[in-house]
Amino acid sequence: MPVGEDSRIPCQTSNIQLQSQIDMRLHIAAVTLLALIALSPRASAGDESNVQLKNELLAIRDAALADDYAYQQVAHLTDNIGPRPSGSPQAEAAVEYVSGELRRLGLEARVEEVRVRRWMRGIETAELTEYPGQAPGTTQKIVVTALGGNTATPASGITAEVVVARDFAELKALGRERVAGRIVAFNFPFDKQKAANGLAGEAYGEAVEYRAVGPKTAAEMGAVACVVRSVGGADYRLPHTGFSVPAGIPAGAVTSEDADLLARLSTQGKVRMHLTLTSENGPEVVSHNVIGDLKGSQLPEQIVIVSGHLDSWDLGTGAIDDAAGVAVAMETAQLLQALHLHPKRTIRVIAWMDEENGGRGHDAYAEAHASEIGNHMAAMESDLGASHPLGFWAKVKPEALPLLQPVQEVLQDFGANLINRVEFSPGADIAPLAQSGVPVLGIMQDGRTYFNYHHSAADTLDKIIPRELRENAAAMAVMGYALANLVRPLPR
Amino acid sequence: MPVGEDSRIPCQTSNIQLQSQIDMRLHIAAVTLLALIALSPRASAGDESNVQLKNELLAIRDAALADDYAYQQVAHLTDNIGPRPSGSPQAEAAVEYVSGELRRLGLEARVEEVRVRRWMRGIETAELTEYPGQAPGTTQKIVVTALGGNTATPASGITAEVVVARDFAELKALGRERVAGRIVAFNFPFDKQKAANGLAGEAYGEAVEYRAVGPKTAAEMGAVACVVRSVGGADYRLPHTGFSVPAGIPAGAVTSEDADLLARLSTQGKVRMHLTLTSENGPEVVSHNVIGDLKGSQLPEQIVIVSGHLDSWDLGTGAIDDAAGVAVAMETAQLLQALHLHPKRTIRVIAWMDEENGGRGHDAYAEAHASEIGNHMAAMESDLGASHPLGFWAKVKPEALPLLQPVQEVLQDFGANLINRVEFSPGADIAPLAQSGVPVLGIMQDGRTYFNYHHSAADTLDKIIPRELRENAAAMAVMGYALANLVRPLPR
Repeated sequence: MPVGEDSRIPCQTSNIQLQSQIDMRLHIAAVTLLALIALSPRASAGDESNVQLKNELLAIRDAALADDYAYQQVAHLTDNIGPRPSGSPQAEAAVEYVSGELRRLGLEARVEEVRVRRWMRGIETAELTEYPGQAPGTTQKIVVTALGGNTATPASGITAEVVVARDFAELKALGRERVAGRIVAFNFPFDKQKAANGLAGEAYGEAVEYRAVGPKTAAEMGAVACVVRSVGGADYRLPHTGFSVPAGIPAGAVTSEDADLLARLSTQGKVRMHLTLTSENGPEVVSHNVIGDLKGSQLPEQIVIVSGHLDSWDLGTGAIDDAAGVAVAMETAQLLQALHLHPKRTIRVIAWMDEENGGRGHDAYAEAHASEIGNHMAAMESDLGASHPLGFWAKVKPEALPLLQPVQEVLQDFGANLINRVEFSPGADIAPLAQSGVPVLGIMQDGRTYFNYHHSAADTLDKIIPRELRENAAAMAVMGYALANLVRPLPR
Repeated sequence: MPVGEDSRIPCQTSNIQLQSQIDMRLHIAAVTLLALIALSPRASAGDESNVQLKNELLAIRDAALADDYAYQQVAHLTDNIGPRPSGSPQAEAAVEYVSGELRRLGLEARVEEVRVRRWMRGIETAELTEYPGQAPGTTQKIVVTALGGNTATPASGITAEVVVARDFAELKALGRERVAGRIVAFNFPFDKQKAANGLAGEAYGEAVEYRAVGPKTAAEMGAVACVVRSVGGADYRLPHTGFSVPAGIPAGAVTSEDADLLARLSTQGKVRMHLTLTSENGPEVVSHNVIGDLKGSQLPEQIVIVSGHLDSWDLGTGAIDDAAGVAVAMETAQLLQALHLHPKRTIRVIAWMDEENGGRGHDAYAEAHASEIGNHMAAMESDLGASHPLGFWAKVKPEALPLLQPVQEVLQDFGANLINRVEFSPGADIAPLAQSGVPVLGIMQDGRTYFNYHHSAADTLDKIIPRELRENAAAMAVMGYALANLVRPLPR
């Protein structure tokens, strides 16, 4: 799930807002789509090539639903390689593994250089050293994890009074005098009810603002450190990390339980906290995007991207975020090769680097391929987990929708046939392409439990239900192959 | 929830088995009860004292359901005092707080000495240093927590090959040669489906054997350390601690995710783990049971105990295990005082020490009060959380049940009126009394989510739903007052 460095935050925020809007527009979009299909003279097109395409899509779908290739890839990336933060040896091992695997599948595979900053987690502890009702000689533990881009505390930590604010308005109301020299704790809750009701994106979007710019806002009011309530929906004392705009002060996420504790105790009296977050922003190192081309048989210069991001946060093993996305993109190639299907346009599998820690991977790609952006006919990314796909988000022109009808017909069998047209890129890594006018799509997974695990130690292989991952592979492969084989490419 | 030191394990196991049996016998017991009530000549007794008792019980119930005294007690014990392991400063602060509070309520309150062993958690880390597919220069983190009574590793840890066994039979089948010198990992799962179906006790009972005696069994086969799959129902990378029979080798619990990872990797090839568990078994220190008597107006020498245990594990703040039990026992006294109700027999509130780490508290009580056990007319403990109470477990004679009909009539209003007769003590701290023939009862909470949090860092105040805690207070206070006011005490 997207984050970006300073300059990327607007994009990130857009993506988040986007998802909320998508959630809300589900039915509207579906209705719109049906109307468009009804109006389109091509909606029931039955010419020979369309029949052939539909049959091929059916074959791809059925093969995907019977295959565990993607699951095996996620298992290797998570169990055998492990967490893959940008610049880490694990990330490079993953680069080597995926490029080797794409080559083994018969693709023209290569790696393209991406210079990344390696951020390294250090000691992360916190305890309350003063609070109402405190027993002599005791402290109360606070479970905390450093946020990406964190400014380290001294090795011995810092100690300061805690001021709790639910939101930005409350912080402003406290005023600089109450904030300066203190540790600000933002306690804005992730709305579990919204998430349960299918509005996970909205719940995430409104809460993640505090992770993204809370520390910076606190710093601007003179705070010496900032902790934010973890952005997530579970209640298992689980801290969720993520990127935060560098604030020049130490920044961490505490669990929802600990945020509540801080809030309750601070209403009773003075609370002081000792906070140690010794993470390091390492030097720039060379990393890589992995790119594998399944060359088009008729229009090889025209490119359709299927992708996920290879880097992950370091707390878990990055199964749902986003080994799953990489794996379903890999499986797209695997299925086509196994079925001996030759796309007319080139299908390009990309495993992006550095989505979580600044987005240097997609920036490098956009720069290196600037002259051929016009040949990118469409780009897909899967980056919202591996739960059952409901369909797609699509930043495409309205006229594109009728062209995708064969895809919908093939995917409706397992309920993955919604196409929701949206105004922003449904994936951070394909956003630069979207900005250049390339039609972009993302798989729209059922997101109800995604943010329970997202960016936490619990993002592990067991969170992936093999059947649902197969459905995602089917969605990616069917859509990818269709985009590569449409008689008319999607309008730009 | 019960644990015991070496000599207590049979008792613990019995309690666990018991709960399973209870789970399964829910309907049978209810049917039996109805039959007994129908057969009893006293079942519809309408004499004056019974009418008065019933009215008093109704007043207690209604007051309990409108009162947040118990919640405030849990909040203080957890938020302000924090984790309360035996022998810790927090445990002593809790002793002081509860005794002061009972005194403030007008009880004759005192503390009675209990000599406990203070077990102190140290560093607890693990990582795989060798495994199939390992990237150069990397390790894979394993989330581990030391088990109570753990034998420490050296400060630098130990490193050995891991052998995974699902259960005792698999370990035996491996044979001494495959086990000696290795770290044994037991991967016996907590059955979530059983728990969801109301058989949480059965799921716990069958899995906790591995925590209790797994390390000792592994040590007997020459293992150098043992890790067990956490006994719990959630999937949030959450380790659950608990007591383990001292095995002479380091013993920890890994999360369910990490247990699965060890199992998967070990099927692929050799797995070596570096394990550091530097906990310490401290010297014996003096701690206390807290005892508060609300003197009986007619039979003050006759005692009815209402209780919970004051100590907790150290990872969380011990809200559901078992500040809640202590709090509802305290509220029993608070309600009677507020309503100016004077029990005929003495109601004794006890906050037990050391339930989690050896049961020294109930042993000390049994020893100190050996000569007056005959005057203990009944004893209650609440130690399975604070979820909605379904009724009671009762180790009582069949003839006792009709006497409790007024209690059931009063509690049926919110569905807490089951009384399930069982053969073992439904609380570890009242087990010695049960063994001496004292009728004992425990509150039977809805246990479906209890083991998700039990003995973990996530056992915190937010897990308690105030309305449900009020229901527990009502159940404890209504039953406690009834037991103290029955014309005939429960038969022994």
